[in-house]
Amino acid sequence: MRDMKKSTCLVIIALAIVCIPLLATAFESKVVDANPKISYHGTSDPLPSWNEGSAKSAILCFVANVTDKSNPDYVEPEERIAVFDNDGTLWCEYPDYVQSRFMLERVKDMAPDHPEWNDMEPFSSILSGKRFATGNFSYEEIMQIYAATSSNLTPEEYMSLVRDWLNRSNDPHFGLPYTKCVYKPMLELLSYLRTEGFKVYIVTGGDEDFVRAFSEEVYGVPPEQVIGSEIKLQFIENNSSYSVVKLPEILVYDDGQEKAEEIQLTIGRPPIFAYGNSDGDIPMLQFATGGCRRGLGLLNHHDDPIREYVYDSDPSLGGLDKGLKMAGEWGWQVVSMKNDWNTIF
Amino acid sequence: MRDMKKSTCLVIIALAIVCIPLLATAFESKVVDANPKISYHGTSDPLPSWNEGSAKSAILCFVANVTDKSNPDYVEPEERIAVFDNDGTLWCEYPDYVQSRFMLERVKDMAPDHPEWNDMEPFSSILSGKRFATGNFSYEEIMQIYAATSSNLTPEEYMSLVRDWLNRSNDPHFGLPYTKCVYKPMLELLSYLRTEGFKVYIVTGGDEDFVRAFSEEVYGVPPEQVIGSEIKLQFIENNSSYSVVKLPEILVYDDGQEKAEEIQLTIGRPPIFAYGNSDGDIPMLQFATGGCRRGLGLLNHHDDPIREYVYDSDPSLGGLDKGLKMAGEWGWQVVSMKNDWNTIF
Repeated sequence: MRDMKKSTCLVIIALAIVCIPLLATAFESKVVDANPKISYHGTSDPLPSWNEGSAKSAILCFVANVTDKSNPDYVEPEERIAVFDNDGTLWCEYPDYVQSRFMLERVKDMAPDHPEWNDMEPFSSILSGKRFATGNFSYEEIMQIYAATSSNLTPEEYMSLVRDWLNRSNDPHFGLPYTKCVYKPMLELLSYLRTEGFKVYIVTGGDEDFVRAFSEEVYGVPPEQVIGSEIKLQFIENNSSYSVVKLPEILVYDDGQEKAEEIQLTIGRPPIFAYGNSDGDIPMLQFATGGCRRGLGLLNHHDDPIREYVYDSDPSLGGLDKGLKMAGEWGWQVVSMKNDWNTIF
Repeated sequence: MRDMKKSTCLVIIALAIVCIPLLATAFESKVVDANPKISYHGTSDPLPSWNEGSAKSAILCFVANVTDKSNPDYVEPEERIAVFDNDGTLWCEYPDYVQSRFMLERVKDMAPDHPEWNDMEPFSSILSGKRFATGNFSYEEIMQIYAATSSNLTPEEYMSLVRDWLNRSNDPHFGLPYTKCVYKPMLELLSYLRTEGFKVYIVTGGDEDFVRAFSEEVYGVPPEQVIGSEIKLQFIENNSSYSVVKLPEILVYDDGQEKAEEIQLTIGRPPIFAYGNSDGDIPMLQFATGGCRRGLGLLNHHDDPIREYVYDSDPSLGGLDKGLKMAGEWGWQVVSMKNDWNTIF
């Protein structure tokens, strides 16, 4: 399946012969997703926003194989772990991460209580408007802003701030709330995988609680299935109560190798399906597909200048140079957002 | 319910009037637990190894309330998070932790490859037999032994070693495999809660992968629902493969406050049911029951010298001095293993 791009018509015909009966099985009447954002019913196409082609076929064939008890690639439901990056994979990340926009605005909201920030970088140049996007800061500065804008809050307080901000903010380019700049083909895929017995996790470089603030409502992914960057917590006991507070200290920045390590630590077994869009997702895809494993790895390729953006090589958003080169060798499916999707949002 | 020990017959009668209809609801025919180690069917008692009394009533009433949509204490299924300690709560921990026995034996198995251990504490006195139980070592030494016996292995290799060892080892006192020294009343409780829509987590001071090696088979708890102490992992990419390896470095020792912090980090919301047996479980119980929360907290009290052990105040096993004192104030249910359980294993 993975070499299909290079393949001849003969291979396509051979694959069609193999896959059509499997697809027929996949389309049989199933219980409707218990937590459907978009759900599919019975015999209709579970991925209507996906054009026919190698990406859609790869997904449908893979799912048909691992859910068919008579197939040698059958996988028991408890092993059907699917992991998805968030920024650029499930929702729009260009020209800047949504969480970065939140953090930079929050610095301004917090400034009256922090007069010292007027003379302290990186805060002073945020307040003066000189620096206004992730790419303007070093990694260390971004971590400093992340800690400053997350700490001294309980997780509930932080999530409530995030929800309030998301409710009153629009993506300036699309003129839509950020939670509407979510890729419809991906919502269909999440729903399809859940219906086929997969447990769907988000594995994000974004803060775990930032994503938890909307993941259940927007993606149907509950908080315990969100793995992300983490701020250290402190449990404080009072006489007959307690509180849990975020400290100004980063515990995990969940990108690159950390994504694979955090998946193993949290889930305790490797995924069989991994979907990302940047080089920071490579270890996660390797984890699903390397060695003797026969999982499916996919990468969104932002190549649609009309309906979304083209930004392969923007280093401030992780880039995909390495991923595009490795895809062939590792058998990952590169998904062209321009050609493989008939709808973006 | 929690003050029942102090209450008069009148209170008992009043409670019976309130609870009997709720219990009737709880006993109605339900879908049998999908992953039953011990499952209950329809109208029969879901907790047959529990004697009638305040502990059993507290559990049944609590579950009846939170699963009854017309009850003001109703809790949506996705919020029904239950957390259980492992050592001394689900299986026997006396006179020493099972994992400590594994680690000390593994030091001996590893010794031929570590000639330097003959002159290096704490290893030399393990090899000479001078020190042979958790209580003989400082906290730092135990962490050193933990790291040395877990590292340079993939999680799969480590879990395989644990399984092999569990398969060939017996508890010397009971003459049974350690995985048979599991409390039958607790297996019934895990199954009952799952059937009532709870998501059951183990939150243990033991190594996460040590417990994952048997949690699904013995407790019906999948690896992603085991939260425990963690060894740092390293993801290593090779040309067309990868490996994940445990480093000789402790990432989290999951006891006391860390239990509450790890619950929040991993699950992303507080539990409504927490069950432990030592002072290290107190923050976890506070997290479930403190503030405005109305969760249920329970503590196993090891007070049965005939069928198991009596060891309230053994500091090498965490002790329960503080927990017993706090139980009244916080409304936690102390479960007498002698009186509340008609069967131990």
